[in-house]
Amino acid sequence: MKTLFHLTLAVVAAALLPLGQSLAAEDCLPCHREKTPAAVRQWEESAHAGARVGCAACHGVDHKAIEAGEAPVDADVCGKCHRKALLEHRTSRHGMGLHAGWGCTRNLPERDPAECRFCHRKGSEEPVSQVQCARFLKQSSEMGELGCNRCHQVENNCGSCHGNHFTDLAIVRDPASCAKCHMGPDHPQWEMWQTSQHGTLNGSMGPAVGPDCQRCHMPEGSHDVSKGLTAPPSGKPYPEEELPGRRAEMLRICTGCHAPAFARQELARGDAVRAQSLALVREAEAIVWDLADHGLLDPMPEERPPHPLRGEVLVTDGQMLYEDTSRIERLLFKMKKFDFAKTIKGAYHQNPAYTHWYGNAELKMDLVDIRAEASRLRERGEGGKASEKKVAIPRGKKDEEALEALKRKFERGAISPEEYARRKALLLDAFLGEGKALP
Amino acid sequence: MKTLFHLTLAVVAAALLPLGQSLAAEDCLPCHREKTPAAVRQWEESAHAGARVGCAACHGVDHKAIEAGEAPVDADVCGKCHRKALLEHRTSRHGMGLHAGWGCTRNLPERDPAECRFCHRKGSEEPVSQVQCARFLKQSSEMGELGCNRCHQVENNCGSCHGNHFTDLAIVRDPASCAKCHMGPDHPQWEMWQTSQHGTLNGSMGPAVGPDCQRCHMPEGSHDVSKGLTAPPSGKPYPEEELPGRRAEMLRICTGCHAPAFARQELARGDAVRAQSLALVREAEAIVWDLADHGLLDPMPEERPPHPLRGEVLVTDGQMLYEDTSRIERLLFKMKKFDFAKTIKGAYHQNPAYTHWYGNAELKMDLVDIRAEASRLRERGEGGKASEKKVAIPRGKKDEEALEALKRKFERGAISPEEYARRKALLLDAFLGEGKALP
Amino acid sequence: MKTLFHLTLAVVAAALLPLGQSLAAEDCLPCHREKTPAAVRQWEESAHAGARVGCAACHGVDHKAIEAGEAPVDADVCGKCHRKALLEHRTSRHGMGLHAGWGCTRNLPERDPAECRFCHRKGSEEPVSQVQCARFLKQSSEMGELGCNRCHQVENNCGSCHGNHFTDLAIVRDPASCAKCHMGPDHPQWEMWQTSQHGTLNGSMGPAVGPDCQRCHMPEGSHDVSKGLTAPPSGKPYPEEELPGRRAEMLRICTGCHAPAFARQELARGDAVRAQSLALVREAEAIVWDLADHGLLDPMPEERPPHPLRGEVLVTDGQMLYEDTSRIERLLFKMKKFDFAKTIKGAYHQNPAYTHWYGNAELKMDLVDIRAEASRLRERGEGGKASEKKVAIPRGKKDEEALEALKRKFERGAISPEEYARRKALLLDAFLGEGKALP
Repeated sequence: MKTLFHLTLAVVAAALLPLGQSLAAEDCLPCHREKTPAAVRQWEESAHAGARVGCAACHGVDHKAIEAGEAPVDADVCGKCHRKALLEHRTSRHGMGLHAGWGCTRNLPERDPAECRFCHRKGSEEPVSQVQCARFLKQSSEMGELGCNRCHQVENNCGSCHGNHFTDLAIVRDPASCAKCHMGPDHPQWEMWQTSQHGTLNGSMGPAVGPDCQRCHMPEGSHDVSKGLTAPPSGKPYPEEELPGRRAEMLRICTGCHAPAFARQELARGDAVRAQSLALVREAEAIVWDLADHGLLDPMPEERPPHPLRGEVLVTDGQMLYEDTSRIERLLFKMKKFDFAKTIKGAYHQNPAYTHWYGNAELKMDLVDIRAEASRLRERGEGGKASEKKVAIPRGKKDEEALEALKRKFERGAISPEEYARRKALLLDAFLGEGKALP
Repeated sequence: MKTLFHLTLAVVAAALLPLGQSLAAEDCLPCHREKTPAAVRQWEESAHAGARVGCAACHGVDHKAIEAGEAPVDADVCGKCHRKALLEHRTSRHGMGLHAGWGCTRNLPERDPAECRFCHRKGSEEPVSQVQCARFLKQSSEMGELGCNRCHQVENNCGSCHGNHFTDLAIVRDPASCAKCHMGPDHPQWEMWQTSQHGTLNGSMGPAVGPDCQRCHMPEGSHDVSKGLTAPPSGKPYPEEELPGRRAEMLRICTGCHAPAFARQELARGDAVRAQSLALVREAEAIVWDLADHGLLDPMPEERPPHPLRGEVLVTDGQMLYEDTSRIERLLFKMKKFDFAKTIKGAYHQNPAYTHWYGNAELKMDLVDIRAEASRLRERGEGGKASEKKVAIPRGKKDEEALEALKRKFERGAISPEEYARRKALLLDAFLGEGKALP
Repeated sequence: MKTLFHLTLAVVAAALLPLGQSLAAEDCLPCHREKTPAAVRQWEESAHAGARVGCAACHGVDHKAIEAGEAPVDADVCGKCHRKALLEHRTSRHGMGLHAGWGCTRNLPERDPAECRFCHRKGSEEPVSQVQCARFLKQSSEMGELGCNRCHQVENNCGSCHGNHFTDLAIVRDPASCAKCHMGPDHPQWEMWQTSQHGTLNGSMGPAVGPDCQRCHMPEGSHDVSKGLTAPPSGKPYPEEELPGRRAEMLRICTGCHAPAFARQELARGDAVRAQSLALVREAEAIVWDLADHGLLDPMPEERPPHPLRGEVLVTDGQMLYEDTSRIERLLFKMKKFDFAKTIKGAYHQNPAYTHWYGNAELKMDLVDIRAEASRLRERGEGGKASEKKVAIPRGKKDEEALEALKRKFERGAISPEEYARRKALLLDAFLGEGKALP
């Protein structure tokens, strides 16, 4: 069986590769046994070696280009043989939207040109993927590599999970191979699985009894890791009309073990926790926007380094930053990015400590802190200590402040021109009714 | 041996069950192999199946009631056969006081009636256990299920540890089966064990050398998981007169490996760390109460949603909330619920990082924050910015404020009527001595 | 082979030990099998027992002294036989500088004299190591033992890693044996390794493929655990001239598997992340010092318990405290001790979640909080609410404040006398030019 598999691999490889490349391993090994000993060892023990898929099959034969980082072994290279896996990967959130994590448009002269391989084909200046992540743009090149790309490169790099020269499936069937990225404050899926009913049974009774990441999220070995998800891990939501189908897919997975009524109930509870948690985030977000409308953030967006994509404005969506902001904004960032994620992922993964203590309780405690900070900032504003930018609003004149805040709300598109006109008229009426003069 | 065990089980089961139920498995399996495949698989491989303890033995024969969630397989059902285990369980903290986590008195019409099974026998409106947990009462039904009951149901649900259809002891002998609940910010016993001398030796040398949770806390397989504890994990303390006996029990466990003098010393060190940590919490608590006495919390209890059990008053005991409070209160909550627990459990489990960095250092840093927040709130009070409720106290009149704070202290029972009268007289004398008029 | 090893051990031991001690095990066992059962079991299964190295070989024969804790089995005792290991250990950071964690000069009468063994030879009052750690001095005796010494005793205690009576190398070859200390908020090396490429491959493919702590940090079994480090884990930095040699050592270790260019690049990225992170810490530190220069910390060092080594001054170096300080200082402490450590250790260990989310993001969010707190404290100062100590500086007189801050800066050695004179003259000129009188 194994021999047949290797033979097939060899035939496929031979058919796909230009003449002469299939012999390359013998040419490379004498030096590379010395220079990259682990890579050679791993390849020698791999199915690739058994099937005579040599170095050049993936790396090409242009040694200069390889050394210059211009011959990356990216997903397309692997996909020449592993077509089905690549297609599934591209369909999944692993394969789309993760270019959000890259920042090729950053100040290029200061950067290591080898990094460009993440976004550019050799010889092309057109980015393969559009840069979207404001947080990435604020990072140094080195932090971008070590802190961001190590995970986000999964879009184009099969080695993220498989390792570069291994073919041993034990590696990718180990939940720890997912843990390398799916851990930590922003999405501790590995930690919450490990201490869930599923994860603990996996430890004591093996994967046949306690399912691992792969069993539910890569059903039947699919590389579409987002199968059946209704709340996408990041980026734009799935279209409303896709949701019933996606939920049905997930139920199919759950009911491999569980009663349909139970599975449906537990997923519905996750949905409810998600909606309730989102409401807490929205409440906090509204407080921050109200402060901004009244010029009370400290510092205001105009008083700090501009947002790299939007400039001197308040940003609280997916592009929200955690640096060069005010304290209340970074509290909101924590709620959105850490607490909310732990709560809802904890709920869907059935981990009570993550759902409640790491998630829900933190959401609510941060909301307490946000309300306290808002109270302080409002009093500060009344005391005349708010942003210098507020000088334009005559102090002590509550009426004018209300008008100014309404105008800001309109300017940021939160209310329609009609709504703006209507509310403005109401305010003016009220003021004039009280016999107050307005400019 | 195994056969004999199964035979005994079968005889016991046959004796206990009404006629006709022992055949039930054959009736259920044809459908349930399809509908709840994992449950059937697990039962088929269980000692129950070997002993012909079929579905109806635990679930009964009323299919309608089962579907309606009215035939729960709770601890009493298991206890019919497993009497000794149930009695030990009921003696332990697992079996008592944990109903504190349930909230049956919440707004019932909005709730899933199936949840009632946690507290009510079918057909009875009387709660089996009294609701005590204010934090639970603040939760949504879904968070209550996923975030609270998943752990707190252990009181009545043997499946919390054993799984619902398994009988394999490998599951419950794995420390990970404890980890499902005994982890996270409020009681990371699993994490601190895992990186302790005991836990690391368990990993490298096996359970015979490195003891696991069960070896010390379920000695000789006892289901009284609180054996030998002097500081209860939650709820009311053990009576003073029980403590020497409980400590002797724990020493018996420790001295299975350790020298008595060493064990006594280490437990005494844990006691000392506990007392010292409690003093830090008490210091912070006194700061919060003093602020409340002076009307300086922001917001004051009267200005926020009432405490679900106590109403519009400050609560800092076991019913303390972490939501809808002031920032300084939620800092105190963190000290009490997270830092204090990590410090003392870290000490008794001999984990230096939990005892010191996760515990003691956080206690002290939170105290720094609490003092800073108190300093800010006191200055705010002096500046006339404190709670609107304080308007009753004429501003700028320090003498009257002192009298008001003294009155609040008396009203909440912190001083006796005699002490109140004595201190009030002293204050009045001092004021009058300075020639000040008082109302 | 094993027999030969035991024989050699026995010969060496016999040669080193005074006559009569080699027979001691037989004398001790009858009682100790009862009194310290695990110790006896461990010794009986050890290479020491096989080689007839008995109890007295390490403990001596003075039973009274042993019971009084005056015959510690410290590293010197082990080193009599295990000379090479001891020498390597002493060369490493394990063996030097860690006495920083000890506090023998604390109020001795209140302490357990048995603790003195950490620093003193029996019968000597001279400390073996100088006390350096201010944080230790603030601890209770019990917290010092359970929270500090459990790890810091590694300087003189081989049992910290090996266990007291084991000789099984499986214990010390398990990364978990390092985890006992190298975990938690101040240096989570174990956690970051576990979820790194190295650690996850270790789990799925074994130590030959995925290197563990020992493979890189104890190359060829060396006990110099700091080999090849250029940034010391704590204490004073390595001399500049040693760095190239140390880096070459580390590269030798990395290139056992990796291409030299890759290894050099990744270490250089770690260096860059280190420098960038240090700059963030320095920025925060400058904010704190500026506040102190202007008397704006709340409380100021003069208003709180004195620093145990330096007195009533601001301390932000390695001796910085996390208790009895102001809130902004404890935020700086978190940046330095937790966030900075996670960022740079995460980078060198190639763990993206630690490098970025647990490290870099926390550094930046704490800097946001520090700036916010500084903004509040400055406004507080302007409002006349700052430290009572500031009363000496006439309020509202900006010129005099600037002179006062300059003087403080000079007094703490931040500027030279010449620079002080020059800046002072400039300030005076400016004031006088504006027609202002100065005292």
